[in-house]
Amino acid sequence: MDIPARVAAFRAAGENRYGLVTDAGIIDLTPEFGMRFKDLQQIVEAGALEALIAAGQGRSPGWRQEDVEFLIPIARPEKLICIGVNFPDRNAEYKDGQAQPTRPSLFIRFPRSFTGHGGNLIRPRESGQLDYEGEVAIVIGKAGRRIAPEHAYDHIAALTLCNEGTIRDWVRHAKFNVTQGKNWDSSGSLGPWLVPFRDASQLDDISLTTRVNGEVRQSDRTSNMMFDFRYIVNYISTFCTLVPGDVIVCGTPSGAGARFDPPIWLKPGDVIEVEAEGIGLLRNGVADE
Amino acid sequence: MDIPARVAAFRAAGENRYGLVTDAGIIDLTPEFGMRFKDLQQIVEAGALEALIAAGQGRSPGWRQEDVEFLIPIARPEKLICIGVNFPDRNAEYKDGQAQPTRPSLFIRFPRSFTGHGGNLIRPRESGQLDYEGEVAIVIGKAGRRIAPEHAYDHIAALTLCNEGTIRDWVRHAKFNVTQGKNWDSSGSLGPWLVPFRDASQLDDISLTTRVNGEVRQSDRTSNMMFDFRYIVNYISTFCTLVPGDVIVCGTPSGAGARFDPPIWLKPGDVIEVEAEGIGLLRNGVADE
Repeated sequence: MDIPARVAAFRAAGENRYGLVTDAGIIDLTPEFGMRFKDLQQIVEAGALEALIAAGQGRSPGWRQEDVEFLIPIARPEKLICIGVNFPDRNAEYKDGQAQPTRPSLFIRFPRSFTGHGGNLIRPRESGQLDYEGEVAIVIGKAGRRIAPEHAYDHIAALTLCNEGTIRDWVRHAKFNVTQGKNWDSSGSLGPWLVPFRDASQLDDISLTTRVNGEVRQSDRTSNMMFDFRYIVNYISTFCTLVPGDVIVCGTPSGAGARFDPPIWLKPGDVIEVEAEGIGLLRNGVADE
Repeated sequence: MDIPARVAAFRAAGENRYGLVTDAGIIDLTPEFGMRFKDLQQIVEAGALEALIAAGQGRSPGWRQEDVEFLIPIARPEKLICIGVNFPDRNAEYKDGQAQPTRPSLFIRFPRSFTGHGGNLIRPRESGQLDYEGEVAIVIGKAGRRIAPEHAYDHIAALTLCNEGTIRDWVRHAKFNVTQGKNWDSSGSLGPWLVPFRDASQLDDISLTTRVNGEVRQSDRTSNMMFDFRYIVNYISTFCTLVPGDVIVCGTPSGAGARFDPPIWLKPGDVIEVEAEGIGLLRNGVADE
């Protein structure tokens, strides 16, 4: 696979910007595109991602990666939907004697629950049970309802990564829904950037790994997902219209901290890396609020 | 109680507008405020609701209510959070032998799942189990995190109503979350308008009634809520920062169609009215997709 283009939202010199990421630094494209599109979300909504990438070709980077603050790539998607249990071993981890589910569990997060690449996940004072979940996220580029699985990939504009950080004891605070364990301010992360989706091989069978302080905790391949990307797009679009900018976070492999005996929670100073083949590496620290 | 002011978002003559609702018609305030605030959400975010109401005093209405299309009052809140089981009889309805929960169940809806006052709830072709749930909704006017219950009311800008329409068989499609049963496009409604929140008596003990084709199906008082409005604001703001424009839909009394034996689902031609003392009456029809 060629090295894919990478497009990031970032903050530098007091301004929110976006541009093309290269190994030598970031090519700021806000000067050229900023009047028309205030952020990457508007770029995606306008279907202008490839035009942005083309405009950056051959230019010199103006920012070093270490000097910018990475922002979450889509600042305020209309929908940010997460898939619950989506790897076979992970269903077994629940030890509730239930067979594999026939349909995906879905919950919703607010963008406010995420920080960008490089930022700290925040451990709140109400709980010591901050946990990681490494996941692949897809960004919708073309609207649709009841999208057939065979057309699902036509509706994906870009890929990114998610550390779907969770306050574990708040997940089961109430009957049914996990909402409150999944929506603590800055408890997870999204990024580091968008990679344009151009070919099925970017999703069908890529490795997904999560490391804590260098130790591998989660490692699997997307080909093992119980509900694959095509099915997810099909299923969600059955009940709601997907629109450009929508983000779907597609589920985590086994090995979250909650599954160890005793559980291993994140603590200040930890470094969590979520890495997926062809997408990149999302790195975050942990800090107490 | 004085007749409260009512502020509506509506569409007329091909434009989205907002203004003051009177019994004689709607006073369009977009000509005066539209340059600064494109919609009611921006009005609320700017804390300009009372200024808008003041500007409408003494003017003559330009639109008849029956000639406009009511829109949902807050078009795209950062958060739209719903409280699951919040009336004592309703917990008993679940017949799962569980004691009353100690914390509220929370789930999230997308604005796309709602239509405005007067529109039709859509029964999709995938299910015949469209059901109603009448609820009071609060709109946040002042940002806050970890808001103490005794300060909660200071953070509420306005009240409205919700028919938290549900595709019942999709609520239990998967483990845990109810997301997919609660987010069918246009399966519920929000409105008819915003009533500014000025006094505790507007929330503490008001009647809430849902009628289907004139027959009372749900009827209770907010004083019977298991988790009152102050607690709800306090609890949610523990994990996330509430911001102006956020909408919280606060739970439904017993008597949804699912609880009849056999269940009574909504069908095309039905008229559902959700009414709460001092807020108004939200009326919707039902149509097949």
